[in-house]
Amino acid sequence: METITTNFSDFQQFIKKYRNDIFLLCDENTEKFCLPKILKEVPYLADCQKITIKSGEEHKTLETITQIWRFLTENGAKRTSLLVNIGGGAVCDLGGFAAATFKRGMDFANIPTTLLAAVDAAVGGKTGFNFFGYKNEIGAFAEPKAVFINIDFFKTLNTEDIFSGYAEMLKYGYISSKNLLDETFALENTLSFRLKGEIACKQQPISPVGRNDIEKIILQNLEIKQHYLKIDKFDKKERKALNFGHTFGHAFEAFSHKTDKPLLHGQAVAWGMVCELLLSHILLNFSKEEVLRLLYFVKENYPALNFSCKNSQEIFDIMQHDKKNSSNEINFTLLADIGEVRINQNAKKAQILECLDFLC
Amino acid sequence: METITTNFSDFQQFIKKYRNDIFLLCDENTEKFCLPKILKEVPYLADCQKITIKSGEEHKTLETITQIWRFLTENGAKRTSLLVNIGGGAVCDLGGFAAATFKRGMDFANIPTTLLAAVDAAVGGKTGFNFFGYKNEIGAFAEPKAVFINIDFFKTLNTEDIFSGYAEMLKYGYISSKNLLDETFALENTLSFRLKGEIACKQQPISPVGRNDIEKIILQNLEIKQHYLKIDKFDKKERKALNFGHTFGHAFEAFSHKTDKPLLHGQAVAWGMVCELLLSHILLNFSKEEVLRLLYFVKENYPALNFSCKNSQEIFDIMQHDKKNSSNEINFTLLADIGEVRINQNAKKAQILECLDFLC
Repeated sequence: METITTNFSDFQQFIKKYRNDIFLLCDENTEKFCLPKILKEVPYLADCQKITIKSGEEHKTLETITQIWRFLTENGAKRTSLLVNIGGGAVCDLGGFAAATFKRGMDFANIPTTLLAAVDAAVGGKTGFNFFGYKNEIGAFAEPKAVFINIDFFKTLNTEDIFSGYAEMLKYGYISSKNLLDETFALENTLSFRLKGEIACKQQPISPVGRNDIEKIILQNLEIKQHYLKIDKFDKKERKALNFGHTFGHAFEAFSHKTDKPLLHGQAVAWGMVCELLLSHILLNFSKEEVLRLLYFVKENYPALNFSCKNSQEIFDIMQHDKKNSSNEINFTLLADIGEVRINQNAKKAQILECLDFLC
Repeated sequence: METITTNFSDFQQFIKKYRNDIFLLCDENTEKFCLPKILKEVPYLADCQKITIKSGEEHKTLETITQIWRFLTENGAKRTSLLVNIGGGAVCDLGGFAAATFKRGMDFANIPTTLLAAVDAAVGGKTGFNFFGYKNEIGAFAEPKAVFINIDFFKTLNTEDIFSGYAEMLKYGYISSKNLLDETFALENTLSFRLKGEIACKQQPISPVGRNDIEKIILQNLEIKQHYLKIDKFDKKERKALNFGHTFGHAFEAFSHKTDKPLLHGQAVAWGMVCELLLSHILLNFSKEEVLRLLYFVKENYPALNFSCKNSQEIFDIMQHDKKNSSNEINFTLLADIGEVRINQNAKKAQILECLDFLC
């Protein structure tokens, strides 16, 4: 199990084990906005070889993986070297996969620079890249040796990115307890950066109180994730709880990438959770009031889904291709109540189309 | 741990679990010479989707991996599907890696069609491809769910290929016991195909006695391999015993691929074992007579190494890049005696050059 830390000195301690045998992976943004701060706090990394890739999900490709492999080979990286991935989900996924497969596996660590990556991609060992139009079609399970979370990096994020990560935080509430869910909803107000403003938190520092609340809940989320990882690393059974909102969510995300308004992962998951709460209501009698609570919240804070009812079949087809579906049935993780997860719930096509119709 | 079987009906039993959700990977040769026999004995596979790749180590590339990934995606392979790799080491390594990384891991089975693959690549979970001039630079540890060995496939091999596999069989003798080593040396005579003739076994059937001897020793070899896998899957400690002959061997193989006389893997390992027995003699007082016994055998039955003393530095450099070497020291698996393995033996550059000088 990886080390998760929120302070620089613990991270410095960790990397010292690798002596100077460390390689850094950034994207264009994190090189500019995050790397200087990291090098200032952890000067030990200053002499490391560095590769900078293009930022964004659209570069989560085989070409970028090849570029990282080549960088590692040319610079004499070894099985015992460490690759430090500094970036959002795409950087963590790409760097993790490149490291997992370089000489059949070298160590890597993640420094997530987005809220979404902190609560999602950076922890858990799902690495990979998009292939042939499908998200994470090629990949490997490989856990980072350490994850270093510093919420100051999130200050450069815009509102949309903050909300994208926030959707995953809400997910942890839904799958674990009403208490955590309410605390997470309450975060919207206690966060001292203005979630609904145009600029997230660039202009005002995070107050110590807000900072503690955010860090506390992020660490609680990761504890939940690590619990599932520990009992079901390969996503065969219990870990599927973490897929709540993601069966519809991935399909919305994939579909949106064929339009001129691609959704961020968390935006798609937010709508995915709405659909899956509705499906939970239909199949497991989940509270209608809670469905509506999330629906109104998502409608107010996330961009509308860019599809009409005539696209429903296409979205259904994408869901069928999803790696979590082994036959014609579509497999969901649903809720009987908040914190009452039911994995391997199969829904009929008609029921799925009913949810999609409800949205459009 | 994988199922290893030598009969068709066990294999048929195994694959039935996957219903029709099976994909076949062949190369140009195995499609022609082996697939018809497999389909005759296991008609269940007849309707499966099939991909045929180019044969040979020179096609163990990212391009071929991409071709296999694409085939799996286009034909709707799922995490729960099975990929059956029919071929030599390159096919097993490529198919294994493609399967290990497709949707973060689908099942695969190997049908090795060369003696070398049967005792080496098909079992053990080291998958991957060559990259940027380095052998198996990119890869993953992923064990096949089943390995089906049928020595009739080896009838189409030429003498060189038989000897290539035979070198790995001798390795198992060296690392386990004098008894197995002697039985393996004796196999040269009991094998009813003429090892030293131009044609291996095409023209005469393998006698039941010879067949039993070969199968028995192959299965014994794989038991040894599985023992090491069980206690040290990721090649960190005990499993390094299997690397005997391979530190020099890989360097000879890589070097030979830059010349007009590329060596087969087992040919390089045969010479690698000679060097590492010599190094064992220098460092661990291993019996000089046994060094000479192997030297004479290899000189008589394997092509000479195609390098001169002025290439020694280049070969040393290749060894330094080898994934098993974490610093400037070169790490070897050596023998204090037959069956007395000593892993993590470091040799100085001068000692290594001494061995190379001895050969050239």
